[in-house]
Amino acid sequence: MERQGILAVVSGFSGAGKGTLMKELLARYDNYALSVSATTRKPREGEVDGREYFFVSKERFQQMIEEGSLVEYAQYVNHYYGTPRDYVMQKMAQGKDVILEIEIQGALKVKKRFPDALLLFITPPSAKELCRRLVGRGTETIEVINARLHRAAEEAAGMEAYDYLLINDEIDRCVEEMHRLIQLQHRRTVFHLDFLNQMREELKTLDARSAIEEA
Amino acid sequence: MERQGILAVVSGFSGAGKGTLMKELLARYDNYALSVSATTRKPREGEVDGREYFFVSKERFQQMIEEGSLVEYAQYVNHYYGTPRDYVMQKMAQGKDVILEIEIQGALKVKKRFPDALLLFITPPSAKELCRRLVGRGTETIEVINARLHRAAEEAAGMEAYDYLLINDEIDRCVEEMHRLIQLQHRRTVFHLDFLNQMREELKTLDARSAIEEA
Repeated sequence: MERQGILAVVSGFSGAGKGTLMKELLARYDNYALSVSATTRKPREGEVDGREYFFVSKERFQQMIEEGSLVEYAQYVNHYYGTPRDYVMQKMAQGKDVILEIEIQGALKVKKRFPDALLLFITPPSAKELCRRLVGRGTETIEVINARLHRAAEEAAGMEAYDYLLINDEIDRCVEEMHRLIQLQHRRTVFHLDFLNQMREELKTLDARSAIEEA
Repeated sequence: MERQGILAVVSGFSGAGKGTLMKELLARYDNYALSVSATTRKPREGEVDGREYFFVSKERFQQMIEEGSLVEYAQYVNHYYGTPRDYVMQKMAQGKDVILEIEIQGALKVKKRFPDALLLFITPPSAKELCRRLVGRGTETIEVINARLHRAAEEAAGMEAYDYLLINDEIDRCVEEMHRLIQLQHRRTVFHLDFLNQMREELKTLDARSAIEEA
C-alpha cells in the first residue's frame, strides 16, 4: 500500500504542555512535519522565513485568502496568521504526517476542508493542575492567570468535535500515545479504498486451481 | 476518569485468520470479553451453554427479537444466531472491552445501535494470499473454495463503513495493532464529556491565588 501522510491537528489549553510534546515527538520520530504558518507580523531576532513562519505582507496575505490558499486563518493583535494549504499538501504527498498546532476555531475549519484530519486535544489532568502550571511559570500576574483560566473555559467550546482527548500527566507516556494514535490512523479504511476495490476485483476472477498449480 | 468498556466489532474474510487473532488477543490480555451469541441450534459435543453459545429455543429467540434484546441477528441454514444486548452491556459496565466477531451486515446493525462501537475489518495482504490459505487448509474442494472467494467479493460490500482495516500478514504484529487500536479508543472525546464539562466548570471559578496559598 502506498503511504500518504496523515494530517493531525493538535490543540489544547495553554499550559497543557503542547509545545514540549511537539518538540519531543519531532525529536523522537522523523516521519513528522510541523506545519509552518504564514504571518503578517515582522520576523523577530533569529527567526528564519520558512522555518518559524512564512513572513508575508498584508497584501500578499489578503491575496492568499482570496485565492483560497489558506486552510484557515485568524487575526491576533493586528496581525494575521494562517495555514498555507500548499505546504501541508506537499508534506503529506511526501509521506510526512503533518502536525498543525492551532486553536479550536481554526481546527474546526481544517476539519471542514480535510474531513479525514485527526483532531487531538491535549489537556492537563485537571483544572487545578493547569492552574498550578501557569502559576509555576512565574511569568504572569495572578490577574493575567485568572483571566487566562476563564478564557480557557470559554475557548473549550467546540472541544467535543475533537476525535481524541489526550491527558498530559506524564510527557513520555503522552508523546508515545500521540505517536501511536497518529500512526494507527494510517489504518483507517478511508485511506485504503483502492486496495479494497482491487481486492474485490481479484476475488471475483480468482481461480483456486491456478493457486495450486503455482504452488 | 472512570473506565467503561469499548465495544469492538471484528469482521473479515474467511481465511483472514480472525479466529487465531481473537484467541491470541484474549490469551495475551485480560481486559477483553468475547461476546457470546444466542443460537437456536443444538449444542454439539463439548459445547457449554453460556460459553460457546447461549442455547435457546426458537420460541425464546423469537421473543428476544420482539423484546429488542438482540443487538443483531441472522439466520443460517435454518438456525438463528444473535447477539444478546444484556451480555454485551454487562461486560462493558464491568470495564471489559467487548469483542463481537460477526459479519458485515450484522456489524452495520450494531453500529446503528452503538454509534461509538469500533468497527475493524481483517484482511489478508492480497486476494492471492487468501486463496493460498484456503487451499492450504486442504479441507475443501476447488469448487467450494472458488465459490467462497466469489462470495467474499460480494460480502465485501459495506466494508467501507468499517473504521479501520487491519492487514493480517503477521499474526503477532496484527494482534498488537488490534490491541493498541482498541485501547486507544478509550481516549475518544465522546467517552470523556463528563470530564470535559467538569473541567470547564472548574476553570470558570478557579482563582490562581488559592493555588499559590495551597503551595
